[in-house]
Amino acid sequence: MFVARANEQDRDMTAENTQDPLVIFTPSGKRGRFPKGTPILTAARQLGVDLDSVCGGRGICSKCQVQPQFGEFPKHGVTVTPDALSEWNKVEQRYKDKRGMKEGRRLGCQATVQGDVVIDVPPESQVHRQVVRKEATARAITMDPATHLYFVEVAEPDMHEPTGDLERLAVALRDQWGIEKVTANLSILSRLQPVLRKGKWQVTVALNKDHRDDAARIVEIWPGLTEDRIYGLAIDLGSTTIAAHLTDLRNGEVKVSSGVMNPQIRFGEDLMSRVSYAMMNPGGAAEMTNAVRNAINGLTEAIATEAGIRPFQILEAVFVCNPVMHHLLLGLDPVELGQAPFALATSESVTLDARDLDLTVMNENARVYVLPCIAGHVGADAAAVALAEEPNKSDDLVLIVDVGTNAEIQLGRKGRVLACSSPTGPAFEGAQISSGQRAAPGAIERIEIDPVTKEPRFRVIGCDLWSDEEGFAQAVAATGITGICGSGIIEAVAEMRMAGILDESGLIGSAEQVGTPRCIPEGRTHSYLIHDASATGGPRIAVTQGDIRAIQLAKSALYAGARLLMDEMGVDRVDRVVLAGAFGAHISTRHAMVLGMIPDCPLDKVTSAGNAAGTGARIALCNIGARAEIERVVREITKVETAIEPRFQEHFVAANAIPHKTDPFPELAKVVTLPNVSFNTGGGEGATGGRRRRRRG
Amino acid sequence: MFVARANEQDRDMTAENTQDPLVIFTPSGKRGRFPKGTPILTAARQLGVDLDSVCGGRGICSKCQVQPQFGEFPKHGVTVTPDALSEWNKVEQRYKDKRGMKEGRRLGCQATVQGDVVIDVPPESQVHRQVVRKEATARAITMDPATHLYFVEVAEPDMHEPTGDLERLAVALRDQWGIEKVTANLSILSRLQPVLRKGKWQVTVALNKDHRDDAARIVEIWPGLTEDRIYGLAIDLGSTTIAAHLTDLRNGEVKVSSGVMNPQIRFGEDLMSRVSYAMMNPGGAAEMTNAVRNAINGLTEAIATEAGIRPFQILEAVFVCNPVMHHLLLGLDPVELGQAPFALATSESVTLDARDLDLTVMNENARVYVLPCIAGHVGADAAAVALAEEPNKSDDLVLIVDVGTNAEIQLGRKGRVLACSSPTGPAFEGAQISSGQRAAPGAIERIEIDPVTKEPRFRVIGCDLWSDEEGFAQAVAATGITGICGSGIIEAVAEMRMAGILDESGLIGSAEQVGTPRCIPEGRTHSYLIHDASATGGPRIAVTQGDIRAIQLAKSALYAGARLLMDEMGVDRVDRVVLAGAFGAHISTRHAMVLGMIPDCPLDKVTSAGNAAGTGARIALCNIGARAEIERVVREITKVETAIEPRFQEHFVAANAIPHKTDPFPELAKVVTLPNVSFNTGGGEGATGGRRRRRRG
Repeated sequence: MFVARANEQDRDMTAENTQDPLVIFTPSGKRGRFPKGTPILTAARQLGVDLDSVCGGRGICSKCQVQPQFGEFPKHGVTVTPDALSEWNKVEQRYKDKRGMKEGRRLGCQATVQGDVVIDVPPESQVHRQVVRKEATARAITMDPATHLYFVEVAEPDMHEPTGDLERLAVALRDQWGIEKVTANLSILSRLQPVLRKGKWQVTVALNKDHRDDAARIVEIWPGLTEDRIYGLAIDLGSTTIAAHLTDLRNGEVKVSSGVMNPQIRFGEDLMSRVSYAMMNPGGAAEMTNAVRNAINGLTEAIATEAGIRPFQILEAVFVCNPVMHHLLLGLDPVELGQAPFALATSESVTLDARDLDLTVMNENARVYVLPCIAGHVGADAAAVALAEEPNKSDDLVLIVDVGTNAEIQLGRKGRVLACSSPTGPAFEGAQISSGQRAAPGAIERIEIDPVTKEPRFRVIGCDLWSDEEGFAQAVAATGITGICGSGIIEAVAEMRMAGILDESGLIGSAEQVGTPRCIPEGRTHSYLIHDASATGGPRIAVTQGDIRAIQLAKSALYAGARLLMDEMGVDRVDRVVLAGAFGAHISTRHAMVLGMIPDCPLDKVTSAGNAAGTGARIALCNIGARAEIERVVREITKVETAIEPRFQEHFVAANAIPHKTDPFPELAKVVTLPNVSFNTGGGEGATGGRRRRRRG
Repeated sequence: MFVARANEQDRDMTAENTQDPLVIFTPSGKRGRFPKGTPILTAARQLGVDLDSVCGGRGICSKCQVQPQFGEFPKHGVTVTPDALSEWNKVEQRYKDKRGMKEGRRLGCQATVQGDVVIDVPPESQVHRQVVRKEATARAITMDPATHLYFVEVAEPDMHEPTGDLERLAVALRDQWGIEKVTANLSILSRLQPVLRKGKWQVTVALNKDHRDDAARIVEIWPGLTEDRIYGLAIDLGSTTIAAHLTDLRNGEVKVSSGVMNPQIRFGEDLMSRVSYAMMNPGGAAEMTNAVRNAINGLTEAIATEAGIRPFQILEAVFVCNPVMHHLLLGLDPVELGQAPFALATSESVTLDARDLDLTVMNENARVYVLPCIAGHVGADAAAVALAEEPNKSDDLVLIVDVGTNAEIQLGRKGRVLACSSPTGPAFEGAQISSGQRAAPGAIERIEIDPVTKEPRFRVIGCDLWSDEEGFAQAVAATGITGICGSGIIEAVAEMRMAGILDESGLIGSAEQVGTPRCIPEGRTHSYLIHDASATGGPRIAVTQGDIRAIQLAKSALYAGARLLMDEMGVDRVDRVVLAGAFGAHISTRHAMVLGMIPDCPLDKVTSAGNAAGTGARIALCNIGARAEIERVVREITKVETAIEPRFQEHFVAANAIPHKTDPFPELAKVVTLPNVSFNTGGGEGATGGRRRRRRG
């Protein structure tokens, strides 16, 4: 922060007087001697202690509250007497009488040093306090958002020095806050004069700093000292859902998280079909752009209502999204992303005004930051995952997979990070599966198959009971048992493999071969029946040979992408695997390993990062330095394009077997023994040869 | 220019070989030795010779054409042999065959040095050629506009290095033109991909540099090498008329000048009544903003049509205007400008996109530059006058008056410039005058009164004959004689004073006192009849005592403002007077001096600068350095606010007499002897005491 810097310099030039009282700040431990009468806020600034202030020391904002400590402090080597701080002055007393203050608190800008003293800075008085993530990881975000509030007193106009109101405001910001250069657009400029007069030449301005230039933009202005809090939205714009986290820009607290379906789904379920829509329909791209912007506006409105704030208090938004969503959000035709060489219109981060994107519900002057894209298939969402998971700072070799219709894969450690995208298709999300469905109440999400009886038992979303437990039927009566979701199909296929219903090549055995009537012939292949309610008009849920093939294609693509990066890195194994995304949070790592979705690795080294892209968005929202960092990191990532790597095809074919044709899975073997069965009688369908050409999306 | 700079550095690092051929450029006289085979364009750049190139040396734009000179050049000490340049190569020959070239011309990027040579750079191949103003003054504008065209070859997308198209374009501009940083808005970005592909990775971009930061904005993009010329509009936005000059940004040539009435007139004739309209009517300011922007759009359309260009070729606009017009153009409520302390919302220059001002006819990405305002009453138009007339560079003390409803007055010379505004009111424009009218056919514009017979003769606009010349009646039959325009009323009052019809205090004598029946009683005062067509249903045109008072108020305000600046400067006389504005171009300096409008000064030192504000706008359009210069000059101008200066009132009262109560007019006395008459009989109306409070505007 500028003020701290400027004052540290001052401090350097001032010789310390050893007779002066000693001031020790906790929890930072920073200490220094200051002449009697020095305000605590001044001492804090000179020492670079993180003590907040919006009003600049006028005793009206109360952000600089501190808790002086009295008594003996052997650890610090000081004794603090009751008169170590000045008496309450009028300003401080008036604030306390009017607004109230916690017991023992003082205003740092009013209380002055009189003797040796220990000053505790409570968390709420720290600007750069660390915000621990809800997820129980070690990672914390240090608050340093792009947008801050500043209270200033502006000189009144003077006919002898007829500068404009904006220019006098700029002088006030320079003199009172050390901000050298401010800009304002016409929308702010048109409100400036009445607001200055309403506030009697005292105003609060919200300034947004850009990490790439030295100018601060005025994005909002209030008469006097505002009570308004200011917020930002961290938005994870997915192909299927749009999720947003309303974040308090003072403390990083997520006030409301909410999401809506991406209305572009009506133009195409997956990304590639949306690109096709844009290609086939004149104005189609613009239509999808309008749809997604409208949805964001609606979501913003809903979130503001839920949080009980006025939408204009939302002064920032950070977007993470895949390249197609990125282009459609920005109003760029995604057509080039649908064909080699998958050229992005722009790959660097984008910063603009909310109004440029027709995001008119939040403050129109809100600044929007879109993270950089890594490549034509590896978007700003992958950049956000990199920001959240920091493979570039990892001591061990980490593989991060974000599984969606495309899987974004990163492999790296300190010094080198690789990234690619692999076209898994939507099978992992339950699409292209005969009984597949989205994760919703009624969907089978967990499944176990007894290796002896070959009988399944399962659980459905919305019910905690297993299907063989008492009361299950009544419990699911409301939702029914409607299909299998993505995590369910993975478990089903893996369980079938472990129970000897499925062989390594991916063939389902016949009732005879397997020894259960649940294996039912379908043409020349078989399916495995999980649940049959057809007698009562309900669905018949089975895993077909086609389902197995779809999962094989998806998992082969995922594995092949990971292997390609391992080749590039020159390694045969990884130290750990991080599963990112909502999907990663729900799948069983053991089942995923049985399927051979991911390279062999100790199971306890396979973790879920939750919504890492969303976390990355929040980090970029709360810490402006993280923006410069991820832009640098993205430039340094080595991009690998699976579509043009001949070895991808080889890896893909080899990965078709379950778990794998050639690669050993020693860690998996330690915990699971797979039956050595083979159902290929020579005449049936073999393993799919070669990679089917599929559309990306 | 960047290229020249970069290459000059290269040159510094290269030791000259005295065996190398000598290349001498004319008209600059720059010379240097270059190895055989050096292209002329390269030599020019290394020497900092101003030689144009859009295609960057690819032999396709032909902007670098030069005229080699052969034979003996004793002045330069060289002999140029016929083989001093390389033979025509294929590229050059192809260009000549396809497009044709003037006899003797060569392409500077293709022809290479083979021996000592003299190279003439014709004016059309110079980027920074001087553009002589149409007005016959010494001043010239050096072309260095903010917007230039650049042809580049962009690298095709590569899946191994998946940067965005914008980023590869930026690299091309850096590598091929030395431009370090470019930005593009969404509108450009959304067109970038198809244009790059249509141009087969060759494009022409128009880049706009801001004189205050280091970024160049892409404002337009064409596939391949464009044939389009690019234009800018220099717009003088007056309260009454909007005048625009369509200027070729290559050579500064004004292709079309045109104007329209300012439609805001329907909200109020003068500025103050428009401010009142904004105060009295909610949404009134926005209404006036819309009106003026629509008018500018209409004017832009008309000008483009007249010039036969497409409006999107207009890539820049520079505005000069008074503070109220400035605020209304920008969409800022002008209410503060209507009351002390006359605070501007912003006083510095403003740069924004045409779309920000709803100027949607010209290219929406066109950059708009509005000159800074000097003070609440001294606007960007006065700044433009300062840019055109350069009082800050004058060796002698110059008084510049720009007469409108407000007079903007500047007084200065090298080292110090003062400025103020004085509320002359609209009398000089024929308003508030009983027979007054705007300058239009039928209006009396010149008048002479015989000092013996007291008979007038006059000329009307649209007819070259004087009223006492043969054929006059027929000649004016079509228009009629409809009233007196601004310059006419000034001549009428001055002639009345010279003819002894009017005394020093401004009283019109009676028929008896003056000795002519044209002096006709009106209540307790008299009027002087100029023309009476009332018998035939025509108007009766006279100068009333009220008209005299209105002119006295106006001229006193003007003179008092000038005197105030002279006081501030500590002088009693000025060396020269410049009359700016359309009005200044039409009035007779002798008559103005008789009236005492301006301080006494040799008549031949009173000149008209024509539309100096419009000239200033053109300068700022054609030369980006002039923008930085005028911003600095404006900051250094000492602003004097007449409204709060007690001495203004004194000067005003003393200036009420014609020409002046106390100040001697020795220079005037050399050319005109004023009769010493007095018509004050004690009972009549005396000179107006004190300054009437009038609204500014």
